[in-house]
Parts: sequence; C-alpha cells; structure tokens
Amino acid sequence: MERLSRDKVVRMVVQPVRWQNGQLSIIDQTRLPAECRFLPLRTVRAVWQAIRTLQVRGAPAIGVCAAFGVLVALREKSAYSTTHDVLEKVREAASYLATSRPTAVNLFWALDRMQRCAEAHAEGESPQMLVQRIEAEAVAIYEEDLRRCRAIGDHGAPLIREGWGVLTHCNAGALATAGYGTALALLFRAHEQGRRFHVYVDETRPVLQGARLTTWELLQAGIDVVLICDHAAAHVMRDGRVQLVVVGADRIAANGDVANKIGTYSLALVAKAHQIPFYVAAPLSSFDISLSGGEKIPIEQRPREEVVEGFSRPIAPEGVAVYNPAFDVTPAELITGIITERGILEPPYLQNIAACFAGEGDSSASW
Amino acid sequence: MERLSRDKVVRMVVQPVRWQNGQLSIIDQTRLPAECRFLPLRTVRAVWQAIRTLQVRGAPAIGVCAAFGVLVALREKSAYSTTHDVLEKVREAASYLATSRPTAVNLFWALDRMQRCAEAHAEGESPQMLVQRIEAEAVAIYEEDLRRCRAIGDHGAPLIREGWGVLTHCNAGALATAGYGTALALLFRAHEQGRRFHVYVDETRPVLQGARLTTWELLQAGIDVVLICDHAAAHVMRDGRVQLVVVGADRIAANGDVANKIGTYSLALVAKAHQIPFYVAAPLSSFDISLSGGEKIPIEQRPREEVVEGFSRPIAPEGVAVYNPAFDVTPAELITGIITERGILEPPYLQNIAACFAGEGDSSASW
Repeated sequence: MERLSRDKVVRMVVQPVRWQNGQLSIIDQTRLPAECRFLPLRTVRAVWQAIRTLQVRGAPAIGVCAAFGVLVALREKSAYSTTHDVLEKVREAASYLATSRPTAVNLFWALDRMQRCAEAHAEGESPQMLVQRIEAEAVAIYEEDLRRCRAIGDHGAPLIREGWGVLTHCNAGALATAGYGTALALLFRAHEQGRRFHVYVDETRPVLQGARLTTWELLQAGIDVVLICDHAAAHVMRDGRVQLVVVGADRIAANGDVANKIGTYSLALVAKAHQIPFYVAAPLSSFDISLSGGEKIPIEQRPREEVVEGFSRPIAPEGVAVYNPAFDVTPAELITGIITERGILEPPYLQNIAACFAGEGDSSASW
Repeated sequence: MERLSRDKVVRMVVQPVRWQNGQLSIIDQTRLPAECRFLPLRTVRAVWQAIRTLQVRGAPAIGVCAAFGVLVALREKSAYSTTHDVLEKVREAASYLATSRPTAVNLFWALDRMQRCAEAHAEGESPQMLVQRIEAEAVAIYEEDLRRCRAIGDHGAPLIREGWGVLTHCNAGALATAGYGTALALLFRAHEQGRRFHVYVDETRPVLQGARLTTWELLQAGIDVVLICDHAAAHVMRDGRVQLVVVGADRIAANGDVANKIGTYSLALVAKAHQIPFYVAAPLSSFDISLSGGEKIPIEQRPREEVVEGFSRPIAPEGVAVYNPAFDVTPAELITGIITERGILEPPYLQNIAACFAGEGDSSASW
C-alpha cells in the first residue's frame, strides 16, 4: 500500500478498509455516526467476525476486506518453508472467510480471485515471493474498485453545478466500497473540483443508512448536508431546493430498470413530477443483462423487527403485520441517465446497454 | 352521558375521552401502543397536565377534554350557594385550562363555549341546575364532534369496496377526536357495514403516529392492517395492492389545496402516477376560506430532535442540519374528493367550496 499512499492521484475522503504496513484495519460502521473508530483486525477470525457483524458492509467493501483477510491469515505464521504451505493457508483462509456472509457475491468473487492468484504462482517462486504476489493481488482488488468509483465520480461530477441542491437516498458511498462510492463519488469529485452545493439526504427507513452513514461521509468531506425524512423529499422539491437526484443501484436489468433500496422508486416519481433530473450511479458489474426487465428482479423481504424495533421502545402494537421490502424497482423511463465507470448511459437503454456490453473491453466505445 | 350510552346509534370503536358517572378519564396516548390505560382525571390540575403532556392529543379531542375539565373543576367543590359562585369557578377553570396548550384553537373554542353557556344561564337558575346545564353543554360538544365524524364516515364509507386495499397516512383517527376520527371514520363505518378490506398504514416519520396510533386503532376494531415505511407506498401501489388513499387535513384553502402531515403531498403524487383515487376527509371547520391557496398556509418547522432522537441512540452525526417541516401542501388538482360531514366535495373546488360556505346552515344544499 505504500505505492498507494505515494500515488496522490487517488485522494480518498473516507477509507472503510485500510492496509498499512501489513496491518488491516476497518472503520467499525456499527459505531457510526456516534464514533469513527478504526478497528485493527489482527486475526483471520477477527476479519470473519467484522464481516459477519456488519462492522464492514457494502458488497465491494466486503470483497476488499476479505481479500486482505487472506493476508492476515498468511501473517498468522511467521515463515513458510514451501509455496505449497502458503497455498494451503490461502485455501484454508478463503473457505473460512466465505462462511462469514453466505449471500455476498463480491465476497466469493474476491476470495476466488485471491486463490487463483496463489495457484497461478505456486510453482517456481519462493514462499516469500508468493506471499508478495498475493499481497499485490489484494491491493489490485482494492485499487481497481477505488479507480472504478473514481471514474464514476469523474463522469458524473460535471452534472452538478455551483449552488445546486442535490438529493440522495440510502448510502451509495465510500463506506460501501474501497472509497468514493458510486452516487456519492459524484459529490466528492465535484467538491474536490471546488464547486459548492448542498445535499439533501433521505434518512432511509428502516435501517437509516442515509441518516447514519451518508450524512457522516459528506460532513467528513466538508460538504453541506441537510437530513430529511424520506417522504419530505417531494415537499423539498416543490420548494425549488433540489436540482438533481442521484442514487446507487443494486441491480440493473437489460432495459435499464433499476432495483435499489426501497424508496428509490417513490423518489423517481416525485422527481419526474417536478421535472428534476434523476440519475443512477453504478459500476457495470451491477448490470444483469440476463434479466430483460425489472419485473424479473426478485425483491428481498426483510424482517418486521427492522421496522418496529430499533427505537427505544417498539413503535407499533405487538403482532401488527409489517410489509418490509428491502428494494423496489424504478422503471427505466423515470431515469435520466445511468452513470458508470465508462460514461453515462442514456435512453434508449435497451439499445445502449446492449451496445455497451457488446463492446466490453473496447474502451474506445463512443457512448 | 347516560343518554349517550343508551343511544346505540352511536357505536364507538375507540373513545379517547370518557365521561361516566361524573368522572372524566382519557386513554393515555403516550403509553400507546404498548399499553391502553384509562387515566382518571380527578382534578383540574390533572386535566391541564394531560393536555400539556400530550396524553390527550388531536385538536377536537383536546377541545372535548377541556370542556369536561371545566366540570371536573366544578366538582372539586361539593356545593355552591349561588350561581355567581358557579360562574366564577367556570371562569377560573377556563382561564387556567387555556394555558395548557397555548396554540390549540379547539381548546379556546371549547372553553369559550363552556363559559358562554354558564353566563347565559347564570340568572334565574339554581346553582345545581346551572351545573347541569354546563354538563349538558360539554356533552353536546362531545356528541357534536362524534356525529360530525360519523357523518364523514357515512359519506365516505361507500367509496371502500369489498376486498380493496386502502392506504392512509398519520393518525386521522378516533384518538384525535371524540371518536371515529376523520379519514379513519370511513374505515370504521365500512367495517361496521360488513365489508372486508385491508389497510396499509404509513409509519409517518418522524413522530410515527401511523405506526403507534393508527395501527392500534384499526386492530382494536378488528380491521386488517399492514404497517409500511412511508416511502414504500409507491412500491405497494405499483404491486396493485392499493385501490384508495384517504388522509386527514390540518387546513384546507378556498381552492381546495390541503395542508396535512408531511408526506401527504408525496403520497398524492405517487397515487396519481398509479391512477389511484386520493381522498381527504375533514370537517368543514378545517376549511379556511380566507386563504386563496395552499401557498398562503404557513408551514410549521419542528425541532431536529424529532428526527434524530427517539431511537435508542442518535441516528445522525452530532450537529448535522435537519429540515423538519411538520406539514406539506397537496395541490387541489391531485385530490379526487374532500369528504366532509355534509357530503363529498369534488372539483372544481373553488366553485364548490364557495357554494358550500355560501349555503352554510342550509342542510338541503345538494352538493
């Protein structure tokens, strides 16, 4: 990571995962916003525990943390006599860490990549050299995510003009990634470019990621923040306080329909009613072009406790039915553009998304 | 009140204020939904305290409670030798109770009416007879509110069809009135008429009146209830689960614009996007025809603590700015109809509201 700290091109606002002098530490997100504490993760067991208990959250951030977790496992032993011993340790750590959050796709992807790197270099290297290769792979996973987020920010930042009000929902921020985030990357980059603007942040019931995490990240960066209740957004727009809405995405279908945190669809409808541009920011890895439309995206139902508990006492009568969908689907026709690491996709989405994925790897694609 | 309990025409679901055998008691709303406790108010000081600490809330319910509070004051003394003594006690109680919530219009209106009643009958009656007259006046205030709410329910109930999903926001229920409520009166009456339907209740951040009070009232009546987070309403509508939206009103302008609990405007927009009828239920006393439009209605700003505190720990970073408007304005063009005690007002509102108030007192008006 010394390379990273010398490389001032990448200036980070909030780093949820840190690898410094061979030591892993994370921001304990369960203590935010009351306290920003870096938690050193000195054993692979501690890494497993941090992922399990949501001390680190957000798919890309989990992947990055798990990749460094493999190194933490390797360092539990002071020396290896053969590369086979190293490989064994990597495999053991990877299969252990994979059990921390059984449904996190980025977790498996990152661990798999670490294992493949170890396997590819197990022959003809010294054990020390192999460990260095593995460390370089984890750093690469980290840096790629950071650069991807930064590229999203660079493509989207020009949308934000001096003096504007921007509204966002949930936490599509640095805390969920290696840094910068997706939707918040635009804000961080525009702020770094010297533009002044203010951000309305939906509190994002029931888990309050907007109130707890997004406001915190933006305040850290010195950006003007105003917290609002989710359903106040329409009133705020009618008052002329918002010129742009930007949110993240969990999954995007081939036609441009976007699944994202519950409340996003409502926000898109009220933005349209006030003729306010509504943008989605997401890496290309969030697209699932095997799905023709949003109606194919399954909506996770979350437990009732998320809604009725969490306050100092239950907020609803015992036993009341609760409908708590985690996500909703925003139809493509409500979306002004989708900001990716390769540029901004605009309607017609079906054609433009297809063209983008047909030309994958061709960075000269003109869209 | 014996008259009332014999009069089975009025069947109440939830009675926030009770006057039985000369004893006043209220449902302590600060303990809902965890506990439904009737709190006897044996002294005028206890009545003052109950209003002050929101144990009783909702403008009409406060008015009714204060009216009976005057009687509680009168009964603190066992006998009166002159009607002048009675009148003095009424005046003393009224001016004391008026200090409990300095901005509650219904409170002053009810106390004023009690005082005027006492003054009108102070000559030529026995002190005992005068106390009885004053009791009859309090009962009349109570019964008029109950009949007004019931009439709103009767006019609106036919809008709700068998098997439908109805969505409501905040608490426009029995707890805020003498009984039945306004928006919820439709649901109680349709339920009493034997129709089955289910009700989606917005939790209504920040104070959670929907989660805490509305779900409780509906469950008491045996109506199917599903609690949702406010911004899930659009998703629920898109799923085809809602056929009608009904909300209360704080103030209605001459052109039909409605000020109501924050989130109402957002709900009206998303209802329109899904072509779902959106009704407001309110007594004629909620109209302020001196205001030409909703832009003239001042929007109360509430303290940041309402948003960031109340959970078991603060939900946002210390010092973050919070914008917490208590109300928003829904423009008349988003409203399908306004259900009053005299019938349903429909567009064009400017003409129809004017006609309604021009013919005030003429119960044969055909609208």
